[in-house]
Amino acid sequence: MQNFIFENPTKIIFGKGTISRIGREVKRFGSKVLLVYGQESIKKNGIYEQVTESLREADISIVELPGVKSNPVLSLALKGIELARKEKVDTVLAVGGGSVIDTAKTVAAGVKADHDVWDFFTYKKTIKDALPVLTVLTISASASEMNPVAVITKEESDQKYSIRSPFIQPKTSILDPTVLYTLSPEYSAYSAVDAMTHALEGYFNNSETDSPLQDRLVEAFIRTIIENTEIILKNPTDYNARANMMWSATLAFNGLTTAGMGMVSYPAHMIEHSLSALYDIAHGAGLSIVLPGWMSYTLEKNPKKFARLAREIFDVKEIDDEEAAAEGVKLLKSWFAGIGSPTSLLEGDIPESDIEKIAENAVELARIWGLKEYTKDVIVDILNLCR
Amino acid sequence: MQNFIFENPTKIIFGKGTISRIGREVKRFGSKVLLVYGQESIKKNGIYEQVTESLREADISIVELPGVKSNPVLSLALKGIELARKEKVDTVLAVGGGSVIDTAKTVAAGVKADHDVWDFFTYKKTIKDALPVLTVLTISASASEMNPVAVITKEESDQKYSIRSPFIQPKTSILDPTVLYTLSPEYSAYSAVDAMTHALEGYFNNSETDSPLQDRLVEAFIRTIIENTEIILKNPTDYNARANMMWSATLAFNGLTTAGMGMVSYPAHMIEHSLSALYDIAHGAGLSIVLPGWMSYTLEKNPKKFARLAREIFDVKEIDDEEAAAEGVKLLKSWFAGIGSPTSLLEGDIPESDIEKIAENAVELARIWGLKEYTKDVIVDILNLCR
Repeated sequence: MQNFIFENPTKIIFGKGTISRIGREVKRFGSKVLLVYGQESIKKNGIYEQVTESLREADISIVELPGVKSNPVLSLALKGIELARKEKVDTVLAVGGGSVIDTAKTVAAGVKADHDVWDFFTYKKTIKDALPVLTVLTISASASEMNPVAVITKEESDQKYSIRSPFIQPKTSILDPTVLYTLSPEYSAYSAVDAMTHALEGYFNNSETDSPLQDRLVEAFIRTIIENTEIILKNPTDYNARANMMWSATLAFNGLTTAGMGMVSYPAHMIEHSLSALYDIAHGAGLSIVLPGWMSYTLEKNPKKFARLAREIFDVKEIDDEEAAAEGVKLLKSWFAGIGSPTSLLEGDIPESDIEKIAENAVELARIWGLKEYTKDVIVDILNLCR
Repeated sequence: MQNFIFENPTKIIFGKGTISRIGREVKRFGSKVLLVYGQESIKKNGIYEQVTESLREADISIVELPGVKSNPVLSLALKGIELARKEKVDTVLAVGGGSVIDTAKTVAAGVKADHDVWDFFTYKKTIKDALPVLTVLTISASASEMNPVAVITKEESDQKYSIRSPFIQPKTSILDPTVLYTLSPEYSAYSAVDAMTHALEGYFNNSETDSPLQDRLVEAFIRTIIENTEIILKNPTDYNARANMMWSATLAFNGLTTAGMGMVSYPAHMIEHSLSALYDIAHGAGLSIVLPGWMSYTLEKNPKKFARLAREIFDVKEIDDEEAAAEGVKLLKSWFAGIGSPTSLLEGDIPESDIEKIAENAVELARIWGLKEYTKDVIVDILNLCR
């Protein structure tokens, strides 16, 4: 196990009927909040009403930034920064999923910066301060509610990049599993893929002899996500299934599974970022296309670890590691397909003739993330395995 | 899954060579520290030197409270409170295991109280403030380095009671696995028993259909602790084994495995507290006597869960739940015996003729902890299964 620092101070308030607590939580940090949310859905399902009522009861003034779409864009965050400055808000509250939270985090950091907020994403500048961020989670997948990461797309250059800083880590996040009852089967599936990929990218970095604990934790999350996604797709209002899925997704990318594993690289996320930067595809849907392709490409280098996944999760019996590993990739892909997530570029409506273009986009992020071995040619080879 | 709040802000600095960071960490909170430690061992193994050098480099004045023994006593904590007030320290640093940390926590809360600190332990008063507590961990078992709990014995009345408050949760804990290299085989075994029991008492509270995730997390910790304790007993300086054991013990009782399980009761701990209050026995050694007895007593009420443990951890194949459960208790007891921890009152040098007296002591704590079903007669029955 390598040296690490683990510090995750986010307060999680989890369970039925907990949204009404948000006013009191925001009040601990300020009295004028920028309320960031997406489209009309939170007005239809009553969450908007619950949140604003709780804020009003706590005497908190509300300034609204609606309109966040999935694969959130820089232009809206810039609008939010301007609005937050003009209105002098002292806190930022995200009511939504990862896209909304990441927009809120970007605004929170941007307000305090005397330069273009995009400089944080290109690693030219380091975040040194931010407004307090709080969240009410409505889509469970990104774990942004309990981590220091945000991902934003700069539209004009098709760059989907990320930031990481303790200053943007949410102070409090409210997780009420009942809000997921209305999440569509498609997005329930994409959420599962996203959460699983977070855990697995760490897992594949780990040499199992060093950190058996982290492997076992990941396997616990993967088993729980698989089991409960299958329940959710049959019965979207199964409380325990939604609750187990929601808490697993949060813990799968809050630093717990990667503590002690050194620098973890996220190649499948890196390549997927180009898919959702260039095409209108959900992040989870992009991941179910890229992850199996990346695994097939990488299989020979690390057959033992892929074989372990195959045996532990899919009960594969092959004795030979390479055969077991290949069988595991097949079974993971077929599980993704079974829950309705695309497993090829074609199924994701992404032209195979664009592979070169996608690789050119991805190699820029590979450079910024320091993934030197991911040259354009390597990325093309991986994408060819995603056909 | 039941509603819960999870908030664990302790900063963990983990790994080789990390003790030298303690000065900077203390400096974030104050400039005059009460240094709490045990006997001479930290002077012999160089830890005392590393800690005080780091504190001096950070310009921190040191006031010393040495002399904490295992099963720490109230009288020393009272002495610490007096000293801390007289010297006007602004932080408390524990360098030791659970006993030292719990003494430090008690001092930290006591300094800020205008009444007898013992009132916190009898639940007559609630902790409302405390000095910041930091730790350098030298025995890994209690998880006190990352939780809000402290256990202290009031000698004159043989009461071993506990407190729980976010105010006493450590701000920073440094975990350097190499400090465990010199931990004796006996204490390495007792540590394993203590950490396993923390995780298992939560596990036995959980109905597995509600929170499969928590069960899987506990099983991940138990497997890792078993595997690495066996390595440690063969090779006390195996870094990865010490590191995996150390991190597992911390996570096994930091709130992670019990989040979502409602009020968790700790009956084996409750009864053990009387053993170590009345006799000179290590807490872990007491637990390896009590836990199997408590399991045998409770087996009929919850055979399914005990059977799950037997199958998952000890690979028991019996199809009948009650038979599998009974076999699991036998195997757990024999594993405890195998690592050198006592599994009967006799082996722990505790007179069987004292069972009535032990039960009389324990029933008082049962009352304070709200474990109404644990009458004196029930506790006698359980202790009879620990013979």
